[in-house]
Amino acid sequence: MSIETAIRESPATDRISSGIIDCDVHPQFNKGLADIVSYMTESWRTRLGFGADADWSKTFAAAQFVLPLDTLYINTAGPQRGDAVPPGGAPGSDPAFMAAQLLDTHGIERAVLIAGQLFGIGAFPDAEVAAVVASAYNDWQQERWLEFDERYRGAMVVPPQHPEAAVKEIERMGDKPGIVAIFLPLHDIAAGKHHYYPIYAAAQEHGLPIIFHPSGTENVYATAPRMAAAPTYYLEWHTGLGQIHQSNVMSMVCHGVFEKFPKLKILIAEGGFMWAIETMLKLDRDWRGLRNEVPWLNRRPSEYIREHVRFTTQPFPEPHDKAHLAPLLEMVYAAETLVFSSDYPHWDFDDPQRALNGIEPALRRRICVENGRALFGDRLN
Amino acid sequence: MSIETAIRESPATDRISSGIIDCDVHPQFNKGLADIVSYMTESWRTRLGFGADADWSKTFAAAQFVLPLDTLYINTAGPQRGDAVPPGGAPGSDPAFMAAQLLDTHGIERAVLIAGQLFGIGAFPDAEVAAVVASAYNDWQQERWLEFDERYRGAMVVPPQHPEAAVKEIERMGDKPGIVAIFLPLHDIAAGKHHYYPIYAAAQEHGLPIIFHPSGTENVYATAPRMAAAPTYYLEWHTGLGQIHQSNVMSMVCHGVFEKFPKLKILIAEGGFMWAIETMLKLDRDWRGLRNEVPWLNRRPSEYIREHVRFTTQPFPEPHDKAHLAPLLEMVYAAETLVFSSDYPHWDFDDPQRALNGIEPALRRRICVENGRALFGDRLN
Repeated sequence: MSIETAIRESPATDRISSGIIDCDVHPQFNKGLADIVSYMTESWRTRLGFGADADWSKTFAAAQFVLPLDTLYINTAGPQRGDAVPPGGAPGSDPAFMAAQLLDTHGIERAVLIAGQLFGIGAFPDAEVAAVVASAYNDWQQERWLEFDERYRGAMVVPPQHPEAAVKEIERMGDKPGIVAIFLPLHDIAAGKHHYYPIYAAAQEHGLPIIFHPSGTENVYATAPRMAAAPTYYLEWHTGLGQIHQSNVMSMVCHGVFEKFPKLKILIAEGGFMWAIETMLKLDRDWRGLRNEVPWLNRRPSEYIREHVRFTTQPFPEPHDKAHLAPLLEMVYAAETLVFSSDYPHWDFDDPQRALNGIEPALRRRICVENGRALFGDRLN
Repeated sequence: MSIETAIRESPATDRISSGIIDCDVHPQFNKGLADIVSYMTESWRTRLGFGADADWSKTFAAAQFVLPLDTLYINTAGPQRGDAVPPGGAPGSDPAFMAAQLLDTHGIERAVLIAGQLFGIGAFPDAEVAAVVASAYNDWQQERWLEFDERYRGAMVVPPQHPEAAVKEIERMGDKPGIVAIFLPLHDIAAGKHHYYPIYAAAQEHGLPIIFHPSGTENVYATAPRMAAAPTYYLEWHTGLGQIHQSNVMSMVCHGVFEKFPKLKILIAEGGFMWAIETMLKLDRDWRGLRNEVPWLNRRPSEYIREHVRFTTQPFPEPHDKAHLAPLLEMVYAAETLVFSSDYPHWDFDDPQRALNGIEPALRRRICVENGRALFGDRLN
C-alpha cells in the first residue's frame, strides 16, 4: 500500500465529536441567473434579457446575460460530487438535501455558504449588472438558505468592480440574521489597491471578515485575474490558482491595508496555503532591505498575514512523506490560521473526519472548531 | 420625414435583377457544440465533456466545453432577426428555411457561409480543442449545408492558435466542393505576425481568400482581441469593433504580408469600412517619413489595402446627409473593394434591395455581383 493510499484509507476513528465549522460550502442554482431574477426589478430583468426571450435566443450568446464562469478550462471528470445530485436538481441546489448529506452526516455545526456560481461576477463589464446580481443573490440566499436551517450561515456577495454599491449592500444586508462574512469576488484590480478601501472600511465597521475564493474565471475573462502564463489544461489551471491569492495577499500587506484597517480579517477559501509559507518567508527577508519602499509597515510582513489572513483547509496538501505535513502546518501557523472547509459539493470535497486524520487532536480541534469560531465570532451563535 | 427615414423607406424599385453574391451569412446551431460532436471521435467527445453528462453538469461550467461567445456584452433587443426562427429551431439553423427566407426572397445567387458560432474559437486555451471543433464544423457544414443547395458556398474554419493544424485542415478541406474561402477566427496575436504565415501560404496556394469577422469575444476573453478601453455597454462594444480590424489590417500591411503573399486576399466581414479610409490615409502620409521602418513595402500602404483587402457592406454607413455617402464610397475605392453582405440572420440584417438604394446602378452592381465574383472566382461556379 502506497503512502498516499494509506493516508486516504486511514479509518475515521479519531472523530471530532462536535462543533465543526465548515468554512466553504457552495449553494448553487438550478438554472443559473434564472434562479434569482425574481429578486430583481422588472426593468433589470428586461435589461438582463430575462422575460420575453424564446429559447433559441440562448443558443447564440448576447441576448441574455450569463454568469461568468469557467467555460474554457474544463474538468471533464465532472466538477461536482457525483452523489451530490438532489432529486430533480443540481448539486448544491437543495437546502434539505445538503443538510442531510453534509451537515448531518459529518456533524457540521455551522456551514458558511459562499455563492457557488457568483465567483466570476468581477468579469461583468457593467458594474451595475454585477451589483444587481449580487443583491438578488443575497436576497435569495437569505430566503432559501439562511431561513431554512440555522446551521447555514451566509457570506453576502458584493460587486468588486463597484465599491460604492458594495458599501450600500453591506449596509443593507450586513446585519441581517445569519450573515457572517462578505464574499468579495476577484477582479483584475489587486486587492491592496485604494479601489477596495471603502469596502474594507465597511467590513471592519460591521465586524465582517472578507472572503476571497477562486473566481473560476482566472485566465478566461479579460477582467479576471491572470496567472504568469496562460495555462492550456484544467490540470495546470487548477494547480496554478495559488498565484492569484499570493498576488492579492502581497498587495494587501505591502499597501499597508492591515495598518489602515487593523481589525480587518481575510479568509482565503479554496486557495490552499503552501504559497503563503513562501510568501511570508520571502516578504520578511526582502523587507529587511526594502522597508523604505513600504514605510507604513510597522512589523514584519508575515506578522500581518499571521494575524489577519486565514486559510481554508481544502485543498489540503498531501506530502509524499506524511511526516512532512507537520512542519508545513507549523510554518503556516496552522494553530491560528487554518480553518476547516469541505468545499461541498465540489468534486474535490474533503470529509472532515478523514481529510485531517493524522493531525494531532488539539490542532485538529483548533482547525475544525476553534479557529472558525474565532474568525466569525458571535455571528456563529 | 427625416433624411434617415427617407433612406430607409425609399421604395425598392431599383432592383438588382440577379446574380447577387451575399458574402456574410451565418448558419447556426440549435444546441451549440452538441450539434457537431457526432463529427468527432469518441475520445474527443469524452474530452470535451459530451457523453455521460447529466443535465445538471451544465448549470456549473467546467464540466463541458462551451463555444466562446459573447456572454458579457448583451444585446437585449435580441441578436437575431425576430422573424428568422424556423419551426422548432434556432435562427440560421435550417438550410431549407434560410433558402426560402433569404435566397429566394432576395434573389441571392450565392451565399457565403461563415460559421455563426465559431467566431470565438481563438479563445480556447487548448489549441487542439480549437482544431477539433473547427474540423467537426467543416464536416457538418459540408453535409448539412453545401450538399443541400448549391447556392450555399462555405468558408472553412481553421484554428487561429494552431497554424500546423490549420494548414492540415486546408489540405483536407480546401478543395472540397462548395468551399470558397478560409474563415480565420480572431485571436490576440496580430494578423501580420509570423505565427500566421503558414496559413497564409496555404491559403494562397489554394487560391482561397481569408475571411476575418468579429469574434464576438472582443474584450470578453483573455486571449481575444481588445479595444483601447474596455467598453461597458453592448452599444459601445458594437461600435468599437472597427478597432480590431484596423489593428489587424495595419499589422498585415506593415509586416509586408502582401509582399510575401502577393496573391493573398482578405475579406473583412461585418467590420464596416470607414476605419479603413482613415487607415489608408494615415498610413500613406506617415509612410513617407517612416519607410525605413518597413523597407519591404514597395508601394504606398493604401495600395496594398486597395488590392488585397475587401470589405462587406453590412453594417453600412448611414450619413446624416445622404450626399456624403458618395465621397465615402470613393475614398474606400468601393468599386473595387466592397462586396455585398446581408449578415443574415443577425438583428442588423441588410436587405440587398434596400440597403444600397441610392447608389448609382453600375456601382451597386459591382458591389452586389461583380466584386464578389472577382474575389471568389471560379469557386462560385
